[in-house]
Amino acid sequence: MDTAKLISKARETRDSSIARVEPPLAPLPASLPKNVTRIPDEYLTARELEITALDAPELLEAIRDKVYSSEDVTRAFLRRAAIAQKLNYGPRLTSYIQTNCITELLPERAIERAKYLDSLPHPIGPLHGLPISIKEHHGMRGCSTNGGYVALIEREPDGDLSLNDVLWDAGAVFYARTTQPQAVMHLETSTNIYGVTLNPWNTDLSPGGSSGGESALVAMRGSVLGIGGDIGGSIRCPAANTGIYGFKPTPGRICSTGTIVATSGQEGVIATKGPMSTSRSGLDLFMEAYLSSEPWTSEDTIAPIPWRPVTLPPKLKIAILWSDDIVTPHPPVTRALREVSSALQAAGHELVDWKPEAHDECWAITHSLYYEDGAACVEQLLSRGGEALLPLTEWLIKDNGNVRRRTAEEVCALKVQRNAYRQRYNKLWRSTGSGSEDSRMVDAILSPTGPGAAPPHGNAKYWGYTSQWNLLEYPGAVFPVTTVDQRLDVRDTGYVPKNAQDRFNYELYEPGRYVDAPVGLQIVTRKWEDEKCLKILEVVEKAMGRK
Amino acid sequence: MDTAKLISKARETRDSSIARVEPPLAPLPASLPKNVTRIPDEYLTARELEITALDAPELLEAIRDKVYSSEDVTRAFLRRAAIAQKLNYGPRLTSYIQTNCITELLPERAIERAKYLDSLPHPIGPLHGLPISIKEHHGMRGCSTNGGYVALIEREPDGDLSLNDVLWDAGAVFYARTTQPQAVMHLETSTNIYGVTLNPWNTDLSPGGSSGGESALVAMRGSVLGIGGDIGGSIRCPAANTGIYGFKPTPGRICSTGTIVATSGQEGVIATKGPMSTSRSGLDLFMEAYLSSEPWTSEDTIAPIPWRPVTLPPKLKIAILWSDDIVTPHPPVTRALREVSSALQAAGHELVDWKPEAHDECWAITHSLYYEDGAACVEQLLSRGGEALLPLTEWLIKDNGNVRRRTAEEVCALKVQRNAYRQRYNKLWRSTGSGSEDSRMVDAILSPTGPGAAPPHGNAKYWGYTSQWNLLEYPGAVFPVTTVDQRLDVRDTGYVPKNAQDRFNYELYEPGRYVDAPVGLQIVTRKWEDEKCLKILEVVEKAMGRK
Repeated sequence: MDTAKLISKARETRDSSIARVEPPLAPLPASLPKNVTRIPDEYLTARELEITALDAPELLEAIRDKVYSSEDVTRAFLRRAAIAQKLNYGPRLTSYIQTNCITELLPERAIERAKYLDSLPHPIGPLHGLPISIKEHHGMRGCSTNGGYVALIEREPDGDLSLNDVLWDAGAVFYARTTQPQAVMHLETSTNIYGVTLNPWNTDLSPGGSSGGESALVAMRGSVLGIGGDIGGSIRCPAANTGIYGFKPTPGRICSTGTIVATSGQEGVIATKGPMSTSRSGLDLFMEAYLSSEPWTSEDTIAPIPWRPVTLPPKLKIAILWSDDIVTPHPPVTRALREVSSALQAAGHELVDWKPEAHDECWAITHSLYYEDGAACVEQLLSRGGEALLPLTEWLIKDNGNVRRRTAEEVCALKVQRNAYRQRYNKLWRSTGSGSEDSRMVDAILSPTGPGAAPPHGNAKYWGYTSQWNLLEYPGAVFPVTTVDQRLDVRDTGYVPKNAQDRFNYELYEPGRYVDAPVGLQIVTRKWEDEKCLKILEVVEKAMGRK
Repeated sequence: MDTAKLISKARETRDSSIARVEPPLAPLPASLPKNVTRIPDEYLTARELEITALDAPELLEAIRDKVYSSEDVTRAFLRRAAIAQKLNYGPRLTSYIQTNCITELLPERAIERAKYLDSLPHPIGPLHGLPISIKEHHGMRGCSTNGGYVALIEREPDGDLSLNDVLWDAGAVFYARTTQPQAVMHLETSTNIYGVTLNPWNTDLSPGGSSGGESALVAMRGSVLGIGGDIGGSIRCPAANTGIYGFKPTPGRICSTGTIVATSGQEGVIATKGPMSTSRSGLDLFMEAYLSSEPWTSEDTIAPIPWRPVTLPPKLKIAILWSDDIVTPHPPVTRALREVSSALQAAGHELVDWKPEAHDECWAITHSLYYEDGAACVEQLLSRGGEALLPLTEWLIKDNGNVRRRTAEEVCALKVQRNAYRQRYNKLWRSTGSGSEDSRMVDAILSPTGPGAAPPHGNAKYWGYTSQWNLLEYPGAVFPVTTVDQRLDVRDTGYVPKNAQDRFNYELYEPGRYVDAPVGLQIVTRKWEDEKCLKILEVVEKAMGRK
């Protein structure tokens, strides 16, 4: 295999797709600020800015009411996505010169689709005319999908893709495919094919991963609704890092058929797809639109559970996870927890502290189960493409101490341990109802999404605040809370780290490294309580004074 | 470990529990017919016969209306269960002299429970006062559970048991625990602890397995509702073999927490519990009562799906699986398929032939996935108890060609193959809607439950007609259709077997070996269509002229 040639081919596919966006973009400046979120203001038309300022339900309404055509909307987002892509170049970022959030735009087919939808007398479904961006390894009908592996660059074009096909039938316009990291298993986003994806709020920082192409694009408002996937934090971490909304539902609610992963058949921890959006309403919209199609009638891997109405008690009982007792969150995260708690308290809700139960054990089980084969499948695929392990891949499968080749018995023993841990945690949650005045269980946990805001590139090595909920299969919704404040979020110079992971995280923090970095938090509910999770997010945001 | 002493202890527990049933039973005759189903008529009082002739919903009604007390009902079933147990002895059956369907009766606690329930002013739940029998390895609060393994005979008494606890809260009376085979993985029922369980319709035949204690007990009307479990046919095969009703739901609808299995952590094929009953109404009753408790609020391993109402079209489209193209069913099974088809046709339903797709591949995947560790877990447990592998265990884990120690990669590859097979079969089912006049998919498959009626002991070596639906996770409901007819069900002397499995099955058949053997068939629907499965069973039975 000619590795360099394949990589060129993939980049050529990307670059030519961006070059075909019309009208062509004016050249971007040679030098860019670290925070590039406002750059589109200078390059888009007033009308394009007006369109791309709207959130998903507003766009749908505007298309329905013929304020804009789907074509208008699609063209605006293609242009804005192209800018988001180009912004990630820049002379300052020499080592990232080839990086970006897009693997491919789909201008011709998107415009054709939009025109077709515009030609119809009535909306064909709840997403009629809405441009939706998709993480590359999820696949795209008629396109080739490489999943971030050089070895797969010339793969046959995709056929049926269960989730995409549902969105299509609901009226979606597919126009952008986004980057993921090597092995789709970093909480950052870089591959040997496309390089590093940058955080638009501060290009020195990671937009997170593995759905970091989506998070960067959505944060740039180059997309209002994107589809990511999550097995250890891959929707929630990038959402938090870029100040957007993201939702990881309970596995078994959204179909994954067609997605490229190296670890097929490894089912110790189950990945799930989910929405990433500029707004909370985008998450609701996606879940309702998808599940209203009754996707289980065609895909029996998902449970036949419609998007159920939820009635919440007027007074919620929210538990705060201040720390998981392994890695203490950085000051801006703790401040965000405090701010949201205060708002909740002021709104009359009951707050309790969440006592984490053996999150270190959960981390060990989770990371051990990611690769039942010691990640041989990943190494083989990388080696077939003639490409090197990137540092975070090296860390994940070699250095973090949990991944190794195991016998079938050892894998089974891990699953027994996992099942027992799940049961224990479920009991822990249920026990929050005993002994309290009204015998009411905790409704949700307010949890950090990570041990800090978006990290400087190459440092996302603690997944515990998200992967915890993957092993337990609890839904998690991430929402933006604040940004790092140079004055308020000073380093705690007296802090004594508890262990090596904690020390690594502690030493990483210096407010000056995190200028403009968003901080997002996470609402976690019990398994299957997906509807409740998003409903509580609404209550929390209302308590915060948002709409 | 003193194997013999442990076995004696377990048998002593059983025998003394039966001896404590009051009033004591008159001695049974020294010589019994092969068909022992009518023997209770000679040993029970008229009132006991009246009670035990009722099905589950009738008993509940009678208890609610104070026609009988729960204590009356419980005492009657304890006595009838004790007879069912003793009948399985007999001088003719010297090699089975210690065999039976009961591992333990619970006279004192059952009577105490019944009296308590009788003392209450109102029913506490939908099963108020109903005696329910439970397969031993499911466990029983406060009792020791050995799961058929000598090594576990002195195990600590059980605590929480999710399903039992729900039934308890619904008002059930636990009074009988029933046998299962070694490793809980034969489609017959024998262990080194309790010996062989016999089929009450013809004691030369097996009642099936692994829930063969339940099937023998229910067929004797020593129970009207029992709980079995199924990973390859273990509810459905024994139900068909003994002329009772049995239902294997989709995995994920009934909680298994607390059940003893050697293969914990092996999740290639998921077992599920389910009801076995004297009546179809018993199956409905169990599913409704269990799911109306919303068990998912305490056990998050099960999907939050209530027992949903189903509306069927007036004209069903039923596919008949005449043969799986591997093993041709014996003549009485084919006749049963013909009889039910004719009844369905006469009632105006549409019939089509089901074309089996690669059931041989499914068999190989399924049997390979039963033991990811090559069954080392089973051998270790047997060896710890100092007990020998019984012939059907030997066949299952050594001789059937699929079980061997595999690497983690090989196990993953099997799961990939399984997932692809599931998807293929799902497409096959969906394709039944294309090209037909009304584009309607097949509603259900009418399938054999096994390649013949209940086999002579030691011959249940083809599981394909049930295990097929385990791998696919399709629900299956078994109902009695006919019994082997010496005149109609002659051997097809011209038949040329297709392969070794087919030859083995063909050579087994001689009508004279199957006197009085019941033949049951199976209604199979798509994954998650549990409600539809039982509703279609109702339609089928009505077409057969039943109520």
